[in-house]
Amino acid sequence: MPRASKKMKLMAYVKTGPTATHNGAWKHPASELGDIFLPERYEHLAKVLEAGFFDGCFFADTLGLPDIYKGSFDTYLHYGGQLSYLDPVTVLPIMARVTKHLGLGATLSTTFHHPYHLARLLASIDHLSAGRACWNVVTSTTDFEARNFGMKDLPAKDDRYARGDEVVEACCALWDCWEEGAMIMDKEEGLFIDPGKVRYAHYKGEHVSTRGPLTIPRSPQGRPVLMQAGSSPRGREFAARWGEAIFASAADTANHVKLYTDIKTRMDKYDRPPEHCQVLAAMNVVVGETDAIAQEKADYLNSLLSPELTMATNSAMMGADISKAKDEKEFFKAAGHQGHGGSVDKVLQIMEKEKISFAEAARRPRGMVVGSPTTIADHMQEMFEAGGSDGFVLMPNLSPIMFEEFGRMVVPELQRRGLFRTQYTGKTMRENLRS
Amino acid sequence: MPRASKKMKLMAYVKTGPTATHNGAWKHPASELGDIFLPERYEHLAKVLEAGFFDGCFFADTLGLPDIYKGSFDTYLHYGGQLSYLDPVTVLPIMARVTKHLGLGATLSTTFHHPYHLARLLASIDHLSAGRACWNVVTSTTDFEARNFGMKDLPAKDDRYARGDEVVEACCALWDCWEEGAMIMDKEEGLFIDPGKVRYAHYKGEHVSTRGPLTIPRSPQGRPVLMQAGSSPRGREFAARWGEAIFASAADTANHVKLYTDIKTRMDKYDRPPEHCQVLAAMNVVVGETDAIAQEKADYLNSLLSPELTMATNSAMMGADISKAKDEKEFFKAAGHQGHGGSVDKVLQIMEKEKISFAEAARRPRGMVVGSPTTIADHMQEMFEAGGSDGFVLMPNLSPIMFEEFGRMVVPELQRRGLFRTQYTGKTMRENLRS
Repeated sequence: MPRASKKMKLMAYVKTGPTATHNGAWKHPASELGDIFLPERYEHLAKVLEAGFFDGCFFADTLGLPDIYKGSFDTYLHYGGQLSYLDPVTVLPIMARVTKHLGLGATLSTTFHHPYHLARLLASIDHLSAGRACWNVVTSTTDFEARNFGMKDLPAKDDRYARGDEVVEACCALWDCWEEGAMIMDKEEGLFIDPGKVRYAHYKGEHVSTRGPLTIPRSPQGRPVLMQAGSSPRGREFAARWGEAIFASAADTANHVKLYTDIKTRMDKYDRPPEHCQVLAAMNVVVGETDAIAQEKADYLNSLLSPELTMATNSAMMGADISKAKDEKEFFKAAGHQGHGGSVDKVLQIMEKEKISFAEAARRPRGMVVGSPTTIADHMQEMFEAGGSDGFVLMPNLSPIMFEEFGRMVVPELQRRGLFRTQYTGKTMRENLRS
Repeated sequence: MPRASKKMKLMAYVKTGPTATHNGAWKHPASELGDIFLPERYEHLAKVLEAGFFDGCFFADTLGLPDIYKGSFDTYLHYGGQLSYLDPVTVLPIMARVTKHLGLGATLSTTFHHPYHLARLLASIDHLSAGRACWNVVTSTTDFEARNFGMKDLPAKDDRYARGDEVVEACCALWDCWEEGAMIMDKEEGLFIDPGKVRYAHYKGEHVSTRGPLTIPRSPQGRPVLMQAGSSPRGREFAARWGEAIFASAADTANHVKLYTDIKTRMDKYDRPPEHCQVLAAMNVVVGETDAIAQEKADYLNSLLSPELTMATNSAMMGADISKAKDEKEFFKAAGHQGHGGSVDKVLQIMEKEKISFAEAARRPRGMVVGSPTTIADHMQEMFEAGGSDGFVLMPNLSPIMFEEFGRMVVPELQRRGLFRTQYTGKTMRENLRS
């Protein structure tokens, strides 16, 4: 498709908790806290995103409480660190019920889940949402999660990705157990299911095996949309093989172009056309009627930041205790096999670009775009047209307010420029994502 | 509480599929098949049950397709064997959203799930339903399920129960990680969570371990209501230790009294007062305006039974291929460690009572009570007052119609007799169950 007619894709990064990315946002007067455990919160969020024509949302998730910083979870809890409270798979069906088009994604770990459970959960959500399920595939990155599953430590990265490949292969084998049209349900004939259209999966790997069949007939999308955020070389390879939407995070447009090109090039090896994977740049916006208003809003938000919590959050993201690290060399020694490669890369890019120390760069809030709708649309258009992304993952500082403001102010500007859809055209999430 | 003032408890046995217990019911003209994968089906079911003042419902579940009978799943699929299509944990949040009082139960296996996932899923549902989550704890009973999880065969019963005890202990440890009132959320003070009210679980067992804490604050019930259906001596011990509601299935009142007394006696060992566990007798009713109408309805329903599917279903329930077994001795040899002890016991009781062969007894439809509201209420009152049960698990032949008819015709009769609630009095499922 020629670039000119291609539209941006838009995903929302969400959490089952009050804060998603900005560590002081929960203290903002407009931050709603009383409904974290109530269905109404997630119904409202879903409606806001669908009103803004988002392709979908996905729940970030962590299977434990970060206790890396100073060897304790106290800082993280005290200052309101970002937690994933409710299990996303229990929230998505509620969101499905009040929307018709919005894609619905859950982060689910290939390291801690068995493929039979994953395949069944995701196929169920795909059925209940009439074809809008999405799986953000992660291999998990921290020891504190592994210990919740009876492991001493997190398996090494290569082992995690080897298992990850097998888990996705096994899920695909399970999803393919049922052909379309297997459910006959003919009362006269007494024929409920055509057994000829159901087969075993017979998947045997080094790490996981499953025989099948799945208990659940083929879902509307056949399989959920697969999302991925791998940024290490091994992670990018995994993303290039499986990802239909990539959550890409780099320090600036130039670094995004590098990442984008690398992913699309790697896809070739798997015989995948580049348009089958949407590389989406992470973005966090503060929008105001004017640049000055937006800057005031951003300044206020940033006045709420807790520096202590920033350290705890970075420690969790990078898998090592920043309180102990004086420079990056020491830090990487502590990190070992844990942590998000992407977070570390981004800090290194900021160090390089701004000529500051590792500790300073780690403290810096990352990736906030502040301005009027025009300014924000300019930024997005530049990244998009430079070949840095096929669209964006919007990470909220305030949720759902930032999504409302974005939908109300920035989306119309993008539509005016012909860069974003004015209606949903596909029946399923995948159809919208590829349209 | 004196028996006179005590009310019956009522649970509904449901499935995420068209049939729950009667293998020909899907062919009934009133059987709705087009909405098996739609949220509307489960919303309607939930509303019907709440209108009938049920304590709750629980989804029976099996993690695979039965292929024991003649070594194939063909019979089971062709004739409409009872499958659990959608994962119950994705359906319960939808049902929670349209009800206020109904308890919401999922069957979840201790053999195939890790406690961290179980504890988080169930706590999430308890939050989203404001205190109505219920866990029907099973250890699973078939090789065909084990093979979906990469095992060669199902572990032996004692091993399954040993792991089952540990999994429930680990879940309890995880649910107890968060004290009540940990979420302070004081914006002025900048204190989000009081870390002093959160602790590790540090659970270490032979089969499972977890460190915790859970990512999710204490839920309204603290832990879900635990249901159980163990009927072997080991299963009853498990039920006596953990069960707050027991799904009990025996051939007649005399056998129910024996089972009831045994469970309540065993509870003593765990320092549990008898009223903390409701022993509920399985019951399948066909109700009509008169006994004659009900009998006509039952005859029509039974004309839809598939004898071939009865064999496949019994093979799945008992864990051995009935097509190969000429008598019970041979059958038990084939069954090995698989199968529901309760189903086998019930067949043996029917053999004994009616002086028929094992094969004949296995073919017999079990536990259907047919009659006018008075006849059915008489049966229930007799069982209840004989000390055979604290209430009933209603297993539907036609769903949701049987539940509607029961709510409309039998419930008012039970209420007139002072045997059943006329309104919900508790805030949570547990409070209703113990009231």
